[in-house]
Amino acid sequence: MNELLKDLRIVEFSAFVAAPLGGMTMAQFGAEVIRIDPIGGGIDHNRWPITDAGASLYWAGLNKAKRSVALALDKPEGRELAKAIATAPGPGAGIVLTNLPPLPGLDYASLKAARDDMIMLRLIGNRDGSAAVDYTVNAASGFPLVTGPGDGTPVNNVLPAWDVATGLYLTTALLAAERHRSRTGDGQEVVAALADVMLAMVGHLGYIGDVHINGRSRPALGNDLYGSFGRDFATRDGRRVMIIALTPRQWRALGRATGLADTLAAIGPRLGVDLDTEAGRFDARDAIAAIVAPWCASKTLAEIEQVFAGSGVLWGPFQDFATLVNHDPRCSTANPLFAEVEQPGVGCYPMPGLPLDFSAAPRQPTRPAPRLGEHTDAVLSEVLGLSAAEIGRLHDTGLAAGPAPM
Amino acid sequence: MNELLKDLRIVEFSAFVAAPLGGMTMAQFGAEVIRIDPIGGGIDHNRWPITDAGASLYWAGLNKAKRSVALALDKPEGRELAKAIATAPGPGAGIVLTNLPPLPGLDYASLKAARDDMIMLRLIGNRDGSAAVDYTVNAASGFPLVTGPGDGTPVNNVLPAWDVATGLYLTTALLAAERHRSRTGDGQEVVAALADVMLAMVGHLGYIGDVHINGRSRPALGNDLYGSFGRDFATRDGRRVMIIALTPRQWRALGRATGLADTLAAIGPRLGVDLDTEAGRFDARDAIAAIVAPWCASKTLAEIEQVFAGSGVLWGPFQDFATLVNHDPRCSTANPLFAEVEQPGVGCYPMPGLPLDFSAAPRQPTRPAPRLGEHTDAVLSEVLGLSAAEIGRLHDTGLAAGPAPM
Repeated sequence: MNELLKDLRIVEFSAFVAAPLGGMTMAQFGAEVIRIDPIGGGIDHNRWPITDAGASLYWAGLNKAKRSVALALDKPEGRELAKAIATAPGPGAGIVLTNLPPLPGLDYASLKAARDDMIMLRLIGNRDGSAAVDYTVNAASGFPLVTGPGDGTPVNNVLPAWDVATGLYLTTALLAAERHRSRTGDGQEVVAALADVMLAMVGHLGYIGDVHINGRSRPALGNDLYGSFGRDFATRDGRRVMIIALTPRQWRALGRATGLADTLAAIGPRLGVDLDTEAGRFDARDAIAAIVAPWCASKTLAEIEQVFAGSGVLWGPFQDFATLVNHDPRCSTANPLFAEVEQPGVGCYPMPGLPLDFSAAPRQPTRPAPRLGEHTDAVLSEVLGLSAAEIGRLHDTGLAAGPAPM
Repeated sequence: MNELLKDLRIVEFSAFVAAPLGGMTMAQFGAEVIRIDPIGGGIDHNRWPITDAGASLYWAGLNKAKRSVALALDKPEGRELAKAIATAPGPGAGIVLTNLPPLPGLDYASLKAARDDMIMLRLIGNRDGSAAVDYTVNAASGFPLVTGPGDGTPVNNVLPAWDVATGLYLTTALLAAERHRSRTGDGQEVVAALADVMLAMVGHLGYIGDVHINGRSRPALGNDLYGSFGRDFATRDGRRVMIIALTPRQWRALGRATGLADTLAAIGPRLGVDLDTEAGRFDARDAIAAIVAPWCASKTLAEIEQVFAGSGVLWGPFQDFATLVNHDPRCSTANPLFAEVEQPGVGCYPMPGLPLDFSAAPRQPTRPAPRLGEHTDAVLSEVLGLSAAEIGRLHDTGLAAGPAPM
């Protein structure tokens, strides 16, 4: 959290990962991010992981520091309230972020009619408007068929990487559009298609050129690096480590730290490759691994850690979520990224702020996610200027709702 | 490409994926992005994938629309030139993006001494300054041990997702810092640690809370979705498809389109779960899959495509890179994301622009990556105001270099 964007107000109509992540990133930059959901919650309100009591840790994770407003979005009067909040005046307001199909009266044209300099960021699945989610986009990307053993069985990445990338494209786009508005007075609609983010990245990483120019594709290589040396190895105590040599310096460090420099160097002349190049180490990767594997297998992870400490070797252990959370000091409040935060209805645990440190904007305490509807009344009062009596009537008629009792 | 940020100048000292992607994203927004490399190229200049002639498709992919300057960064005079370019005057200039250890005289303090409102975005591995790359950060993240079969063998994601996310955090940070500078006159240093991006995302997605609050972790589930229904199925012609039902509407569409509605509905009472909830479909996933699998296995991909077209079923085929590039119309110039671009020394192929459409900033033609040193002379002349004679002397003394002859 910092306060770099505290003069912005962003209204979010969202679900799942990409748009909520984008909005939360803005909230952790200090922007006022108002997530408006239907009364009772949107389609992701109870999304897994959940606690034994049924509270969504996913909601808690992707809505930190936002304000939550619950309105009857299925009724015209509820949508009018949402529109009034989204189009309320203020130089930093008038920004909507959404990945849901626009509700009647909440599309860009309707919002622009109410506020001419409206900025709307809209995430869709495919450019033609058809549905796509991270799982279908990933299936089409080519990556699952080169992940894992490469026996023709696709292996999905568990990280929703396309959603993550898209959420962060949206934050970049939001700031570019707001910059343009602050200079010209002009708002605009920005549309991002999840599938296009995947396609762009496949191209950026060289895989489209590979097929077009070379007529071939990157093969499946298990956990090996493509075009350099990197592989995972088993340790004596049943752990696994990733060992990498991208640069000549890292390659020499590996030889020096393991005491295997001469044995490794002998591979070059034997196979006729130059081990000082990435391509040479890639070609010789099985020979390199055949020497490194028994060395790793003869040592525990702790022993390897000791040997590699300060050696310049590029490596790291594999660890599961529990080990990461319980034993990796980077994943604790020893790291300023984290603060212990009490999440109402869930409990207290370390929550990450923004993974960016700004020298001119000191880190502020991480704030928890709101309960659904926690800020309904405050937003109706502060943004729309409604009186307590008017807000009471909206509750009575079922157009607005506060948080459920805990 | 658009021209939303054409008044910005960003100087990049970079290698590999994250910082180059960040810089290229800014270049595709129209910013002048000057990548300064050592003469002969940086450590990623020949990175795979490469063409048969040895040209790097990776370089071509991650440096599109940038300007390339080659200087003797190993000599004080070369570094002075780089510093002069980085700190040259202009309201949109004075921004450096780097993921390399700062060279003498090119650290933030030195740059700030030359230009007080300097903005420097610096990507490091771990917050403590120790090395970390996508592969080691990913190993630590927990994801490889829940990817694939979950038999204790880690499976690395082939997409460098942490690099991608970090590159896009950097673009967001750049615009936030530049916004601050344009309002206050103050520059700053922004530091992002690759490991922190991973840690933040593990937290945002709920996995830290899962361990802390629930004392458990998301298990490995193969290609199944966690907490809802989604699985991959084989078709009669040896392809595989991902079929998903996140929402009640998608769930009903699946039953309707396959004609299996009644059979699927019978699962609910039999197992005592509510199939209209995500958790219910997750609990019943094996029973659902047992009904859907033979249906898929009796049909070719084309037949499934026909049945699902317009049905509201959320699904998609797995395809390899070659199929994506050669047969998916989204990955061609039929999609405005792509343009056929001639990459000097490589050839002509479809290159993606920015995966974002701005209504107030029309899409401009995608530009290729520069050859190393292609803009050395132009930048020395335009940015530093050097004469042809002075530039000639820099070449003669080996302090600057243009592109190698092709």
